[in-house]
Amino acid sequence: MVDHLLGIEGLSKSEIYRYLDTAQSFVEVSERDIKKVPTLRGKTVIHVFFEPSTRTLSSFDIAGKRLSADTINISSSSSSVKKGETLLDTVRTLESMNPDVLVMRHSESGSPHFAARHLSRASVVNAGDGAHEHPTQALLDLLTLRQHFEPKGLGLEGLKVGFIGDVRHSRVARSNIWAHLALGNDVRVVGPSTLVPHEFADSFGSGRVKVIHDLEQGLEGLDVVVCLRMQLERQDEHFIPNLDEYSKEYCVSERVLAKCCPQSVVLHPGPMNRGTEISGDVADGPRSLIRQQVNNGVAVRMAVLYLLARTAEPHEEYER
Amino acid sequence: MVDHLLGIEGLSKSEIYRYLDTAQSFVEVSERDIKKVPTLRGKTVIHVFFEPSTRTLSSFDIAGKRLSADTINISSSSSSVKKGETLLDTVRTLESMNPDVLVMRHSESGSPHFAARHLSRASVVNAGDGAHEHPTQALLDLLTLRQHFEPKGLGLEGLKVGFIGDVRHSRVARSNIWAHLALGNDVRVVGPSTLVPHEFADSFGSGRVKVIHDLEQGLEGLDVVVCLRMQLERQDEHFIPNLDEYSKEYCVSERVLAKCCPQSVVLHPGPMNRGTEISGDVADGPRSLIRQQVNNGVAVRMAVLYLLARTAEPHEEYER
Amino acid sequence: MVDHLLGIEGLSKSEIYRYLDTAQSFVEVSERDIKKVPTLRGKTVIHVFFEPSTRTLSSFDIAGKRLSADTINISSSSSSVKKGETLLDTVRTLESMNPDVLVMRHSESGSPHFAARHLSRASVVNAGDGAHEHPTQALLDLLTLRQHFEPKGLGLEGLKVGFIGDVRHSRVARSNIWAHLALGNDVRVVGPSTLVPHEFADSFGSGRVKVIHDLEQGLEGLDVVVCLRMQLERQDEHFIPNLDEYSKEYCVSERVLAKCCPQSVVLHPGPMNRGTEISGDVADGPRSLIRQQVNNGVAVRMAVLYLLARTAEPHEEYER
Repeated sequence: MVDHLLGIEGLSKSEIYRYLDTAQSFVEVSERDIKKVPTLRGKTVIHVFFEPSTRTLSSFDIAGKRLSADTINISSSSSSVKKGETLLDTVRTLESMNPDVLVMRHSESGSPHFAARHLSRASVVNAGDGAHEHPTQALLDLLTLRQHFEPKGLGLEGLKVGFIGDVRHSRVARSNIWAHLALGNDVRVVGPSTLVPHEFADSFGSGRVKVIHDLEQGLEGLDVVVCLRMQLERQDEHFIPNLDEYSKEYCVSERVLAKCCPQSVVLHPGPMNRGTEISGDVADGPRSLIRQQVNNGVAVRMAVLYLLARTAEPHEEYER
Repeated sequence: MVDHLLGIEGLSKSEIYRYLDTAQSFVEVSERDIKKVPTLRGKTVIHVFFEPSTRTLSSFDIAGKRLSADTINISSSSSSVKKGETLLDTVRTLESMNPDVLVMRHSESGSPHFAARHLSRASVVNAGDGAHEHPTQALLDLLTLRQHFEPKGLGLEGLKVGFIGDVRHSRVARSNIWAHLALGNDVRVVGPSTLVPHEFADSFGSGRVKVIHDLEQGLEGLDVVVCLRMQLERQDEHFIPNLDEYSKEYCVSERVLAKCCPQSVVLHPGPMNRGTEISGDVADGPRSLIRQQVNNGVAVRMAVLYLLARTAEPHEEYER
Repeated sequence: MVDHLLGIEGLSKSEIYRYLDTAQSFVEVSERDIKKVPTLRGKTVIHVFFEPSTRTLSSFDIAGKRLSADTINISSSSSSVKKGETLLDTVRTLESMNPDVLVMRHSESGSPHFAARHLSRASVVNAGDGAHEHPTQALLDLLTLRQHFEPKGLGLEGLKVGFIGDVRHSRVARSNIWAHLALGNDVRVVGPSTLVPHEFADSFGSGRVKVIHDLEQGLEGLDVVVCLRMQLERQDEHFIPNLDEYSKEYCVSERVLAKCCPQSVVLHPGPMNRGTEISGDVADGPRSLIRQQVNNGVAVRMAVLYLLARTAEPHEEYER
């Protein structure tokens, strides 16, 4: 019986805390002179990315290497997937190499779940599937918030959290929302109705996620503001009239934050479009936790790999 | 004096068994919790692939890493070969990095042999050269057959083996045929005369390989049926009329196997075109050894790297 | 306080010798059976190459692995730099992964210096920035010369050194010239005025580098002849009339060397255009040190990584 991390949906509060506690314990490893532990020596982690990625892939790769795992990167550009091989054949080929963990990014929702159903011995980690989930991003966002609130005697619960902008297409928003609902937080999604449809909110259960189309009203009283990346092609797809008009109405600026939620902190999953969904003064200002988010990426991925692939006695065969 | 694995042609029966025995001993390593041995620690394996590959490259890469070698991947897309550097200059540049093993795939037959002649200290492994040889694929096919036949009290000798389909362009067929001839087996090639020319058969020595153009006659009494991948561009090159007509006459289906060689097992080097050269019921049915083939890839490549690059006292310098 | 290697400009003679002494001590490691030392175990080296490269990247990658560092390769083709992320955002993302060394190649001069200014804890190595510097190439050229001259009772000082050909665009020439000036050598640049402008020579300080437009006069009495790669696009850019005429006047042949500087040795950074900037008889002849240059690449990069990233007690955490 192997475990997977396919999404935040369905995780209990205690499972979320287990990931966060473990991740926090790994933060320190990357700050050592010798930033490596032998925990996953002799384990194989295969990264199979059907969408291009630098940050997430590098972050997983470094995480695996700092745990002493062997890591292999397979990208779609070099892959026989191009030659029309089915996802099932690809998954079976990968399984034949006896990986302990398969980290998968795919443009189609549900692909990692498909892989997990067809693998008997490898754990699957979803590194982003379509507009569905991106669970390690949500975990690093939570870890960042916890590091911010705990020294103030607060925690991750009882927060008012808003997601601003292109909610409809955001796997980051989706994974984060499941997490905040599990933690019992008050969740809002804010943006124009084309990008923030009621059906989206309803998919989390009736009435659990509030939809607000006016920015100031949406920000009112928030503790946590999560700005989402606007993808430029949304304009051609007629989800927004044009970027200038969009940002005039929805760009999160210091002015509007100071007015509506002066105590709030701001997250952004990156890469940012400064001036479109977030203003430069917010991105680089004191309420921004954006650099801390990036800094937590490796620790969170180390925790996930560790929790899925560790075994009771990791050293017995190798240390002869 | 260094050894190479440039092809199966010229290997003796005992050399083939040495590879298979060693490979079998490595199967178990990949099933351990800690799937890694320190045998090639401090050795450098460079993969230089001038043709795209996922399976073979990943399989070699994992094999090297499970032996604790350092592995480096150089693909033609990022290579200065593009800038018109000659193969000789490339080989000399690679040699200057003191690799222990160079694993090479190239679209031109004989390229790995050229490299081997110009390298004084590195072993060369042919990972596929044009339509010439692909020796590790043949070894993993043999290992798969041995694992199937030995528990039945049989072995790899005294078999009737047929290669079906696009024999002319197949380095997999060529390497396998040399192996089965060395083992003294009865070898046939089966397909339309455009894909299975008499010159091909004659290249193994007069009368050693039988040519049969009718599928049922070709399958008659076979122990081992090796289906070969049809490359779609063959149709444009006028080697076959069209895929539909081809598969009507030559697709290996359960119906024809049950009629002509009910005891046979089936191999396919992958990736498969289901419905063209092999039917789905054969691919997924009880006589298919296709998944076992893939499963043996890493063990065979571990064996090859080990036999070429190991030294008598591998640990003396490192274990201080 | 971290060190960087951004260029040869500004290095003292003793700093240059420190790199060369260290590099010489690493030559032997790559000739061992077990060509690996645990010196940088637990260190992370990120290669971020915004220009394609095989030789330099592979050479750094092997150097890092032979020192037991974890190495990560990020190339621009897979990078979110493509999506318009600024260099600053990229550098910050990379820093968040806590690398010990960032090895950067970039088409714009000064990019590694920019990165170094914005990184507080990682060392930056310039692996080539525009037409500016390529310091590890200069170091391996010097090491090659030292290995040649020292057995003859000579050293690296008191030499007459000439750079022939496309000096204007050559970061290799620029880094080498700074080195030879620091060593007190007599330096000349030789070629047509379009490729060897006086402004170039003046950038090293007035009168320190001699400009000569006639090949025979330029070669007269040289101890070291450095041929530079002619980039084919120079013709379209009207820096040279055409390659045939260029090579008639400036190709370094055995005939002209025997006449003007019979004792000289010849370097070329590769890859060579035989018949354009260097004749085949020189490239493969007895005065060529070109293969030794390539052979020194890994040792020089090991020395650079070692000197920048080593710590006093590298094993204390890992060897439990």
